[in-house]
Amino acid sequence: MSRAGLPSRVTVVEVGPRDGLQNERALVTRDAKVAFVEALADAGLPVIEMVAFVNPARVPQMADAAGVATAVRQKPGIRYSALVPNLRGLDAARAAGLTEVAIFAAASDTFSLRNINQSVEQSLTQYAEVVAQATGSGLRVRGYLSTSFGCPFEGDVPVTRVVELTERLLAMGVFEVAVSDTIGVATPGQVTDVVSALGARVPVSALALHLHDTRGTALANVYAGLQAGVATIDSAAGGLGGCPFAPGAAGNLATEDLIYMLDGLGIETGVDITKVVAASRLIAGALDHALPSRYLLAAKSAVG
Amino acid sequence: MSRAGLPSRVTVVEVGPRDGLQNERALVTRDAKVAFVEALADAGLPVIEMVAFVNPARVPQMADAAGVATAVRQKPGIRYSALVPNLRGLDAARAAGLTEVAIFAAASDTFSLRNINQSVEQSLTQYAEVVAQATGSGLRVRGYLSTSFGCPFEGDVPVTRVVELTERLLAMGVFEVAVSDTIGVATPGQVTDVVSALGARVPVSALALHLHDTRGTALANVYAGLQAGVATIDSAAGGLGGCPFAPGAAGNLATEDLIYMLDGLGIETGVDITKVVAASRLIAGALDHALPSRYLLAAKSAVG
Repeated sequence: MSRAGLPSRVTVVEVGPRDGLQNERALVTRDAKVAFVEALADAGLPVIEMVAFVNPARVPQMADAAGVATAVRQKPGIRYSALVPNLRGLDAARAAGLTEVAIFAAASDTFSLRNINQSVEQSLTQYAEVVAQATGSGLRVRGYLSTSFGCPFEGDVPVTRVVELTERLLAMGVFEVAVSDTIGVATPGQVTDVVSALGARVPVSALALHLHDTRGTALANVYAGLQAGVATIDSAAGGLGGCPFAPGAAGNLATEDLIYMLDGLGIETGVDITKVVAASRLIAGALDHALPSRYLLAAKSAVG
Repeated sequence: MSRAGLPSRVTVVEVGPRDGLQNERALVTRDAKVAFVEALADAGLPVIEMVAFVNPARVPQMADAAGVATAVRQKPGIRYSALVPNLRGLDAARAAGLTEVAIFAAASDTFSLRNINQSVEQSLTQYAEVVAQATGSGLRVRGYLSTSFGCPFEGDVPVTRVVELTERLLAMGVFEVAVSDTIGVATPGQVTDVVSALGARVPVSALALHLHDTRGTALANVYAGLQAGVATIDSAAGGLGGCPFAPGAAGNLATEDLIYMLDGLGIETGVDITKVVAASRLIAGALDHALPSRYLLAAKSAVG
């Protein structure tokens, strides 16, 4: 039984194959990526962001996106998606047979300019066209709103700006906005504030939290998010995607750590934590460092 | 300003030199330990558990406890303490000039027998004498209640047992009980339940939370504890004290990670996070592995 005031069920969006791997230095083979995605599906993860259709010169790890996306044997009932930065990416995702895509907007201009070489306004103009074409041909589109809790260049990001941009993304036709702590600076009170401010203007059911565990606060932030009614949480198996220049530094919130806490809270996810650990071990074998998930490391020690 | 419903100020009890170091394989020199304790005091930590007066054959890392305790130049206003398992330990602590000690009881018989070779009842009989002698000569005594959220041998530990033992420790004369998640299995709802049950019988101001981050949930558990009114939290600089057989596995909740979250919540601690990082770097140089604190690793990456 889940707790009073918390959602009884949470949808965990697995972003390891995309947000995780694209920050990993070691190039992973297509076969290893496909096996990883299939292991994640086997663990019961209901949504898996598999690849990004981005410029291979800028993100070599995603150069084989089409190959990975088409090679994965899709399980019925699971939503497979891809990040697409523009119409070209959307076409590639469609050609690979995907029915769900994600766009990646930012709440800070400096971050947006450095990340995708467009101001926030420029990117929204382009994304509006991507969303229109995607939804027009029956695809679902998810929106990320990165740097919602702080920008590495600008520092604090006003909550009013996060609310305004979330409303615009939803008005554009995205079904969900993943409010993202891209650099892992958020603390729980901030999550409460941002979700409360958003909840006054948009349905909380249209919000997800995408948190990085850079300073160890991701699970505490999830807990604050759950208390504020958020029922969709992003994570990456093993905590994939740490900073390549800081061995051991944390990346995305680890799926195992998230599932362990949700299980303990009596919140249903449909995810089998031991199979997530198996998927993490599979992909860890293809990388040049150990994965930072606390639960994964504890499970290793239990094994011997 | 701190948040509604949370304490405005939290006392952070630094246990790195004791609970942290005694789980570290590499033997640390007396000078390094003294420098570490002094660096922690310099960071503003208001309570520092420096050493344990235990059997050096069982805990070689603490063999020089008296030497460390007497060599530290104590700063006024800071409480320095030592763990004492028995009257002999108490005498040693007194001889070293300490005015605060801690005893270590367990909520599970199997853990107690394996850890200190006494049942819970036997240990309480002995501790009653330690507390009586200590308080009789003007020392303050803190009590740990280990395995309060689960036992590695018995599994679940009944909340009623935790409440009963906490009441008995307080009745014995300890000023505070550190309700301890010795193996890092707790999740936030459980913390809420245990603290609520305790709060119905004892003042919440007499409770501390001592959490390990083994599965990544420690900060989320702290957040639940703060919401339930707990205002004293244990932590260890760098997250010292991980399992020596699992490189990278987490030990005690890291002081840096805790302070980062408390700072973000606007809760006063008097602790300077950059100086905690400096203390962690100091002690890390004496160990055979990197420390697991997320914040520390992120700070490393920021440095270069």
